[in-house]
Amino acid sequence: MFQPARGTRDFLPEEMMRRNWVLDRFREAFEAYGYEPLGTPAFESWEMLSVKSGEDILNQIYYFRDKSDRELGLRFEWTASLCRVVSSHRELPRPFKRYAIGPVWRYERPSESRFREFWQADVDVVGVADPIADAEVIAVAVDCLRRVGFEGFLIRLNDRRILEAAVEQAGLPPERSLDVFRAVDKLSKIGEEGVKEELARIGATKEESEDILKITDLRGEPGATLEKTREIMKSLPVGLSGCDALSAIAGYAAAFGIEAYMVVDLSLARGLDYYTGPVYEIYAEGFEDHGSIAGGGRYDELIELFGGEATPATGISLGVERIVPLLEKKEAFKGLDLGPSVYVAAASDSVRAKAIEVAQMLRRSGVAADLDLMGRSLTRQLDYANRKGFKRAVIVGERELREGCVAVRNMETAEQRTVRLEELTVHL
Amino acid sequence: MFQPARGTRDFLPEEMMRRNWVLDRFREAFEAYGYEPLGTPAFESWEMLSVKSGEDILNQIYYFRDKSDRELGLRFEWTASLCRVVSSHRELPRPFKRYAIGPVWRYERPSESRFREFWQADVDVVGVADPIADAEVIAVAVDCLRRVGFEGFLIRLNDRRILEAAVEQAGLPPERSLDVFRAVDKLSKIGEEGVKEELARIGATKEESEDILKITDLRGEPGATLEKTREIMKSLPVGLSGCDALSAIAGYAAAFGIEAYMVVDLSLARGLDYYTGPVYEIYAEGFEDHGSIAGGGRYDELIELFGGEATPATGISLGVERIVPLLEKKEAFKGLDLGPSVYVAAASDSVRAKAIEVAQMLRRSGVAADLDLMGRSLTRQLDYANRKGFKRAVIVGERELREGCVAVRNMETAEQRTVRLEELTVHL
Repeated sequence: MFQPARGTRDFLPEEMMRRNWVLDRFREAFEAYGYEPLGTPAFESWEMLSVKSGEDILNQIYYFRDKSDRELGLRFEWTASLCRVVSSHRELPRPFKRYAIGPVWRYERPSESRFREFWQADVDVVGVADPIADAEVIAVAVDCLRRVGFEGFLIRLNDRRILEAAVEQAGLPPERSLDVFRAVDKLSKIGEEGVKEELARIGATKEESEDILKITDLRGEPGATLEKTREIMKSLPVGLSGCDALSAIAGYAAAFGIEAYMVVDLSLARGLDYYTGPVYEIYAEGFEDHGSIAGGGRYDELIELFGGEATPATGISLGVERIVPLLEKKEAFKGLDLGPSVYVAAASDSVRAKAIEVAQMLRRSGVAADLDLMGRSLTRQLDYANRKGFKRAVIVGERELREGCVAVRNMETAEQRTVRLEELTVHL
Repeated sequence: MFQPARGTRDFLPEEMMRRNWVLDRFREAFEAYGYEPLGTPAFESWEMLSVKSGEDILNQIYYFRDKSDRELGLRFEWTASLCRVVSSHRELPRPFKRYAIGPVWRYERPSESRFREFWQADVDVVGVADPIADAEVIAVAVDCLRRVGFEGFLIRLNDRRILEAAVEQAGLPPERSLDVFRAVDKLSKIGEEGVKEELARIGATKEESEDILKITDLRGEPGATLEKTREIMKSLPVGLSGCDALSAIAGYAAAFGIEAYMVVDLSLARGLDYYTGPVYEIYAEGFEDHGSIAGGGRYDELIELFGGEATPATGISLGVERIVPLLEKKEAFKGLDLGPSVYVAAASDSVRAKAIEVAQMLRRSGVAADLDLMGRSLTRQLDYANRKGFKRAVIVGERELREGCVAVRNMETAEQRTVRLEELTVHL
């Protein structure tokens, strides 16, 4: 017997219907904000994938050669392909607001919650330097999460430039910034002492580490937190521009109706190297310890690296594999009626063809209908319909048919009513 | 500048919206017939992919090793993964009716109409030996095609057992059957003489070839064609069971309302090795020379090969990459309104936040709304909305706002009406 390859999974129908329902709601939200779909291939040239990726990421890419020895790799996120498209299609309008929903692949150690094939749903705004774009992608993500049943949120906000300024202020050379970001990013995982050890490893003195941790300790409501930050950064223009961006995002957030969830948290760094300004993460209220369920940031220098014109861009990614299990935990799928709706049963063999016709009539008028393909008796048909969770059965019988009727059975109460065929669709 | 890898493509938003629209209609049709989604990974173990694949197919699979040296391959169609799941999940109900929509990958020579990444939309019925399942999957495919705008069809039907019987009758050894099928399958491409050459190459005499071609020449309306076929096959039980299956399919087709399109065509063989009974292909009327847009067949022995219990199964696959261009040719997308709907414009900088609030209100009530992120003037906002094809603009102005109103502009006629904010959603 064969199993799915290590780190990958099958989704059986019930689970798959729930996933599809979630992804449909995301798509609805994306489109409600004017984002448009972009399709890019599952694999890309290795050269392209390598453009902006650190060693860590490159080691996680599924690499292969095609039969002409071209070096290829499976996409490990959506952003690189977006940058490739934007660089080579200069005719695309500005802003270019695109969404993408689908699997990405990373060769990581699989665990209960980490897979080698996992889905991401991304929205990005290309061409807008103003923080309104950052605020909008955060608002879209919150809207997605609301549509599937989340209510309260924690939105953590920071700006890479504030961290850069902190590195500068601590007296560390600017080329250590990325290493510092990576260390700080682990704060919630490894604690202050752990971060200090990491910082020591990259050459920071005890004093320098403490200076950095003093800043990254700041968190709270945007207004007051940014005021404190500005005070600390007052002689560091790069840090102040970070503060300005976060103030602007917080301002727009009020108009988007999401300001209540926002917390400026100077320890937020995010793992990817390419962020240049605001970074953000969204957590579900009450499930903060499950980790972020959406995250992103601004990457104003990336498109140029792909050979395009210098173009500001920002985006957020929803982590489908974290979101779906949380929804299960919240029993958010419970009230949903995702299953089949009407089962058409034939009372005897002589009316099987007629049962098909009735099912076809229902399907044409937009009612999903299933029917027996196994030659089962009426009792066994109804039994099957019951087990599969059909709400209603249409029973096609010879006698009723002669009068132009069928019986409609409520599968929960077993009540039956005779309904004229021409009224059946309306009745259902 | 980077390009998509050879044989793969990007789909820019306009094209992608049309593709999504087609795939959404397919999904609707699948679900209307009670088919349920199954999710399987993009790559599978090489061992699993090799189970039933001839040399031709194996050469087309994108093969790679993961970092633990596991041999993997990208899926080249959906059926193998379905069989794997069915074999290992014996708890799945019977019938198991599943659909799958997504990309598959084959290393073929790319051309204008052949790609290395292409989408297939499949429905399969597992567990039903009766030809009603074959008739149903054909009916589902026809329904899919109708929903996206096709009207007339040609459904070609054959049964592999009739071809087997023809091979037997011609005096060729049964182990040449697959080779004969492959030769006959090329009839429309290489003509009778070409098929004869192929048959000679696999050792058939001139007379044997002619015998086979005499049978495969039969085509026409199911009743009469099957009568003639039965006459020829009268001493060959295997051929007669093929005829019985096709008669049954034609019978069910009447109930499904698709009998008018059906033609029994004994030259239809289909390329894949694993078919065991009925095979079928659907063509769009008036576009028969563009090739089949859907095709499939019965594969009653395949699930056992994957280690499962012997289980009958049949299915059909819709060729998305052939269907979408045909729809473009038919101008089927012309009347569709897939683009954005309402643009919210701010008349001055002072009302930008209010414009966001108005957009949020619309989105919450189900109206897709876009708005300016570039700080553009009102004239340039409306110009952008016009170029992007928005039908209506909501103009948020300071004066109207003071009276609790906004202006709604018809972008085609440039007519404007003043609407109270609380009536805006209803008005739109």
